[in-house]
Amino acid sequence: MSEAGQVLIPKGFRFGATTAGLKPSGRADLALIVADKPASAAAMFTANRVQAAPLALDKEHLRATAGQVRVVMMNAGNANCAAGQAGIDAARTACAVAAQIVGCRPEEVFPSSTGIIGVPLPAEKVIAALPDLAARLGSEPGHFFDVAQAILTTDTSEKTAFAQLEIEGREVRIAALCKGAGMIHPQLVPHATMLVYVITDATIEPAHLQSYLNAAIESSFHRISVDGDTSTNDTVLLLASGASGAAIPGNHAAFAAALTGVCTSLAKQIVADGEGVTHVVELRIEGAANDADALKIAKALAHSPLVKTAWAGSDPNWGRLVAAIGYSGASIEPERIDISFGDLPICRDGGRAAEFDEAAAHAYLKQGAFSISIHLHQGSGSCVFWTTDLTAEYVHINADYST
Amino acid sequence: MSEAGQVLIPKGFRFGATTAGLKPSGRADLALIVADKPASAAAMFTANRVQAAPLALDKEHLRATAGQVRVVMMNAGNANCAAGQAGIDAARTACAVAAQIVGCRPEEVFPSSTGIIGVPLPAEKVIAALPDLAARLGSEPGHFFDVAQAILTTDTSEKTAFAQLEIEGREVRIAALCKGAGMIHPQLVPHATMLVYVITDATIEPAHLQSYLNAAIESSFHRISVDGDTSTNDTVLLLASGASGAAIPGNHAAFAAALTGVCTSLAKQIVADGEGVTHVVELRIEGAANDADALKIAKALAHSPLVKTAWAGSDPNWGRLVAAIGYSGASIEPERIDISFGDLPICRDGGRAAEFDEAAAHAYLKQGAFSISIHLHQGSGSCVFWTTDLTAEYVHINADYST
Repeated sequence: MSEAGQVLIPKGFRFGATTAGLKPSGRADLALIVADKPASAAAMFTANRVQAAPLALDKEHLRATAGQVRVVMMNAGNANCAAGQAGIDAARTACAVAAQIVGCRPEEVFPSSTGIIGVPLPAEKVIAALPDLAARLGSEPGHFFDVAQAILTTDTSEKTAFAQLEIEGREVRIAALCKGAGMIHPQLVPHATMLVYVITDATIEPAHLQSYLNAAIESSFHRISVDGDTSTNDTVLLLASGASGAAIPGNHAAFAAALTGVCTSLAKQIVADGEGVTHVVELRIEGAANDADALKIAKALAHSPLVKTAWAGSDPNWGRLVAAIGYSGASIEPERIDISFGDLPICRDGGRAAEFDEAAAHAYLKQGAFSISIHLHQGSGSCVFWTTDLTAEYVHINADYST
Repeated sequence: MSEAGQVLIPKGFRFGATTAGLKPSGRADLALIVADKPASAAAMFTANRVQAAPLALDKEHLRATAGQVRVVMMNAGNANCAAGQAGIDAARTACAVAAQIVGCRPEEVFPSSTGIIGVPLPAEKVIAALPDLAARLGSEPGHFFDVAQAILTTDTSEKTAFAQLEIEGREVRIAALCKGAGMIHPQLVPHATMLVYVITDATIEPAHLQSYLNAAIESSFHRISVDGDTSTNDTVLLLASGASGAAIPGNHAAFAAALTGVCTSLAKQIVADGEGVTHVVELRIEGAANDADALKIAKALAHSPLVKTAWAGSDPNWGRLVAAIGYSGASIEPERIDISFGDLPICRDGGRAAEFDEAAAHAYLKQGAFSISIHLHQGSGSCVFWTTDLTAEYVHINADYST
């Protein structure tokens, strides 16, 4: 959000959403972001070796255009993954129709899908809905929020973030939207069912755009986990329209900070809206041998069913934290582990802290969001990571998904 | 169980259990296995870098005696882990008292603890209960089952397995007992809160005993996972009393097979009694590039919350299996993945099988135990792995453990 809390949409883009009939709920499920002119594009995709059909086309298209995108075409309700050649054909057909309607080449279309895996995308439903959708695009905040709504699946609310900054006397805007509540453990590689779209009206060449995006992802989406499952469809796309008139070189600290801020805001919103989540947990790992070890510990905690269920019960069972630290693979000395819940000393030198107050610890963990600090006393490695508890509601949501 | 279903206890051992007041429930929580003479010992312990106090003593004692054990002293209700020097001191004191009562050296005592982490073992309770316990030891099956009962924590039933074979005209018996229902993902290293005790009355030297144990663990306890959490206390101990009079060399196939059979039986019993488990799943991975890749895939599936919750709901959402295979780290080609539920074709060539019958698949997955076969068509690597679903009951059990 801008300082005044205003929603300021980057120039050079139009937005729209409609109901193509892909979601059983009958809600909006197809959305477009159309750039007035080809926009510079940078993208990251899931590291999963099984990747959805649209990701194959995205990579092919970005190569063919050297990183130029006119149309982002998003659908929810069907992931178009593990659907064989039929899935590829469906995505390709939908891109061709979208290109024809907008007036661009098919390679300038960037398709994204999210939803159930293993069922081919019904392209005919997408194609039937596109003409009317394209005719109703607009550049108002309401249009932008329509897109943010349409791409949701098990999410309970839309997720958006905004920033603006002045560069060379010109106002540069950044706006972002995303979806993601389950199958969240993004592992992205440069060429990622978390879908994230960030747009700006700055002028930035694709190579620099990719560097900005990689750096922003590293400290945002790569620092969250809901359930440890890495999706087949994760995608982060950053588009720069240039419509602000401000040109940004490859090392602009203020732009990098603004972009990282927007991505971090979205990452935290994803965690807070995680499936069945009742507690959002900030993990602050310090004193690790190196940053990689700090991240190993954060991920071990974020993926431990025993740790996550203890959080669900606001249970100050810190022994489970110690056990997960122990099997994380990080270099540690058990007798030097310190743990605090917020400001409450819990574990000192690997054993129960003298000041340990179970009732106070329990009360602290009853909060909807809390922070756990762990100091290893091994070196200067650190990280901040956001994750969630594991609740019976998570199980209910995921035991009944497709049936 | 022996062929006739008889319980035959190896000769040379006595057993007993009592209530020391460590379990809040007031049930039996302290147990002894006493060998009439020093028994050859082989052990494996958890690979977790945080290890409970008794494990430190076990390693020290086995070194000091070159692998000889007289007394196995087990308690449930307290893991004596992350309790600092106080934990070590408590274990050492209890060992000294046990040694004095039995009439052996403290180094010949092998202590084990299971239960909550982070609270020092109240040694005084153990010490107070030992004299009466030692006076009531016996060698009947009932005494053996008393031990199997006393070491349980969240387990719902005792877990035992028996075998006998004839070697050189003499009857050799193997008996085993274990506990474990949560924090189950054993990763053992030679020197494991799954506790497993296997006893035999064969004569086997410690080095050979260790080789037999390592091989048996590899295809049993290393092929199961309930929740992916590797405990700080996992221990497997194999004792050979020699009381049968049969000497076994290092390469006796029938003994190896019998030992592996007993360990596999216990491993499957642990999975079946997993916390909140409603479905036991046998994973048969074939056609992997190599055995290590097959195991990577089995573990990815066994640790995926989305896969495990789908099993809880008997949901034939095979796309989640494909996604987990994709991020397992194994070498795969998505378009060559075949999946069957029992004999039902589910996924062929990476897409939905033509014969896919959702109602039949759902009905198959409603069974309390089922088998999933996955063929990768990459090579000849394979493994069989046993795991469980993830239920709301698992969350309830673990969200309320210490409070």
